[in-house]
Amino acid sequence: MKPQHQAPEANPKARIGHRIEQALRRALAAGEAPGHPPRLAAAMRHAVFPGGARIRPQLALSVALACGDGDPLLADAAAAAIELLHCASLVHDDLPCFDAALTRRGVETVHVAYGERLAVLAGDALIVLAFQSLAAAATHAPQRLPVLLGIVARSVGMPLGIVAGQAWECEPRVSLAEYQRAKTGALFAAATELGAEAAGQPGVPWRDFGQRLGQAYQVADDIRDVASEPGALGKPVGQDQALCRPSAAADLGLLGAMAHFRTLLASAVAAIPGCRGAPALRALVRAEADRLLPSAITAEIARLAA
Amino acid sequence: MKPQHQAPEANPKARIGHRIEQALRRALAAGEAPGHPPRLAAAMRHAVFPGGARIRPQLALSVALACGDGDPLLADAAAAAIELLHCASLVHDDLPCFDAALTRRGVETVHVAYGERLAVLAGDALIVLAFQSLAAAATHAPQRLPVLLGIVARSVGMPLGIVAGQAWECEPRVSLAEYQRAKTGALFAAATELGAEAAGQPGVPWRDFGQRLGQAYQVADDIRDVASEPGALGKPVGQDQALCRPSAAADLGLLGAMAHFRTLLASAVAAIPGCRGAPALRALVRAEADRLLPSAITAEIARLAA
Repeated sequence: MKPQHQAPEANPKARIGHRIEQALRRALAAGEAPGHPPRLAAAMRHAVFPGGARIRPQLALSVALACGDGDPLLADAAAAAIELLHCASLVHDDLPCFDAALTRRGVETVHVAYGERLAVLAGDALIVLAFQSLAAAATHAPQRLPVLLGIVARSVGMPLGIVAGQAWECEPRVSLAEYQRAKTGALFAAATELGAEAAGQPGVPWRDFGQRLGQAYQVADDIRDVASEPGALGKPVGQDQALCRPSAAADLGLLGAMAHFRTLLASAVAAIPGCRGAPALRALVRAEADRLLPSAITAEIARLAA
Repeated sequence: MKPQHQAPEANPKARIGHRIEQALRRALAAGEAPGHPPRLAAAMRHAVFPGGARIRPQLALSVALACGDGDPLLADAAAAAIELLHCASLVHDDLPCFDAALTRRGVETVHVAYGERLAVLAGDALIVLAFQSLAAAATHAPQRLPVLLGIVARSVGMPLGIVAGQAWECEPRVSLAEYQRAKTGALFAAATELGAEAAGQPGVPWRDFGQRLGQAYQVADDIRDVASEPGALGKPVGQDQALCRPSAAADLGLLGAMAHFRTLLASAVAAIPGCRGAPALRALVRAEADRLLPSAITAEIARLAA
C-alpha cells in the first residue's frame, strides 16, 4: 500500500515536482500585485494549475541536478519558464481557430471556461511572465542572462521554436520531421540545455538528448491520439486526423510509429552526456516512456497487427 | 516644395525614423533563418511594415538621445522591442474575438490577410522576438539586462501592462484611469524609461513623462474614434461605443475630453527631466500633439459645442 501523506521531500521525483510547483506559484503570484485584472489572473491559473505531467520542467530540473544544481533558484525559474511557455502554447492551440478543444487535462479549456478573449490574453501574459521570471531570477548572475534567454526564445519563437512548429500547420507543404522538431522537440531541447546552463554547466552537449526525447514524445502523442480510448487522455482523441495534422501514426502506421518511438527513445538515452547524474536520468527517461505509451496501448497495437 | 529624395540623415526626426526601421528589419531578419515557416514570417512582416506613426520607439530613441545616446545599438534594439510588442498587441486586439477589425493602417488586418491562426501565432512570435532581440543586443552589457527586461515585461504583462489593460475589457467593473494607464500608458512609460536606461542613465525619472504622454495619447485616440471621418484613421471609427469600451469621450463628452487631453499633455511636458535634450523633446511632444488631434477635429468639436 502506498503511503498517503508522504512528505514532498521523500523521494527525488517528488522533490523535483515540489520545486516546480513552488516556482510556478511564485511566478504567477508576482503578476498578481495590486491593480491586476482578476479574471485574467484566474485564466492564467487555470492554464497552469493543476498541471499535466510537467515533463519539460522535470527534465530541466533533472538535468540541473545531474549537473550539480549549482544555482537552485535559477534552475527552478528556468524550469518554470519552460512550463509557462508550454502552458501558453496549449491555451492558444486549444482556441477555436486551431483545435477548438473543449477539454484539457480533464477540465474545460481556458477559452471554454473564460472566453476566447481571456484565452488569447492569458497565453500572451504567460509568455511575458516566462521571460520576466527568468530575468528576475538571474539578477545576481546577469552575465548568464543572454545565453539563458537566447535558449528560451529560440525554443518558442522563429525560426524553429514551438510557435513556428504550430505555424507549419498553416503551410501548404510541411515535412513531418521539421514540424515535430519545432513543435515538440524545441521545448524539450531547451529544457535540457537550460537545465545545464542554469546549473552553471555548458548547455550545448545536452541539446541532442532533449531534442530526441521531444521527438519521441511527439510520436507517442500521435500514437495515443489514434489508439487511446476516449476520455483516457483528458482531451479529445482522433484530433490529428480530424484536423489533417501531420502525424507519425498516419505516416508510418501504428506499428511503424511504435518502432520509430523506440528508436528515438534509445537514441535519446544514448545522447545523455556522461556525468554523475546520468544513471538517474536514464531511469527517469525509461519511466517516462512507460507513462507515454502504456503497455495496454502497445499490447493492443501488437494484437491488432497480428 | 518639399525635397523628394531627402537622405534619411538630413534631420533628427528622419534619422530616428531610419534607425527604428533598420532595427525592426534586423529583428525580423533574425527570425527568418533557414527552416522558418514562410507564411508566419510574412504575417509578422505584415504586422510590422509599413508602420504607423512609430510614436513609441520614436519616444524611446528621443529620450536615449536626450540622455547622450551612450549605447546606440542597445537603444535601437530597445526601441524596436517596444514597437514589436505594440504591433503584437494590435494583431491580437484586431482578432475576431476582440475588435474584429478588418483594416489597420489602411490595409487588411493580419487575420484578414493571413487567417486567424497565423494572426494568433504572429502576435506570439512578435512578443518572443521583442525579448530575444533585446537580450541579443545586450550581450556586451549583460549587467543591464535585468533592468531593461524588467521594464519591458512590466509594460506588457501582469499586473499593469498592456495585456492587463486589454483584459480590463473583460471585467465586469473597470476604472477608466486604470484601464488607460495599463492599455496605453504602460508602453509609453516603458519607452521613456527604457530609452534612458539603454543610454546608461537612470530610467525612473523618465517614467512619469511617458505615463502622462501615454494617457494623453489614449484620450486623443478616444476623441478621434468619435470625431473622425470614416476612412481618415486607416481603421474603423466609432469602435469604442460599438464595443462598449471605456472611453474618455463617452465619460467626459468631447469638449471635456479635449480639455483633459490638454491638461495631460501639459503635465507630460512638465514631467520631462532637466537635461540638454529637453527642449528638443518638448518640441517633439508638441508636434505629436498636433498630429494626434488635428486642428480640423478640434475646430469641429468647438463648433459643434458652440
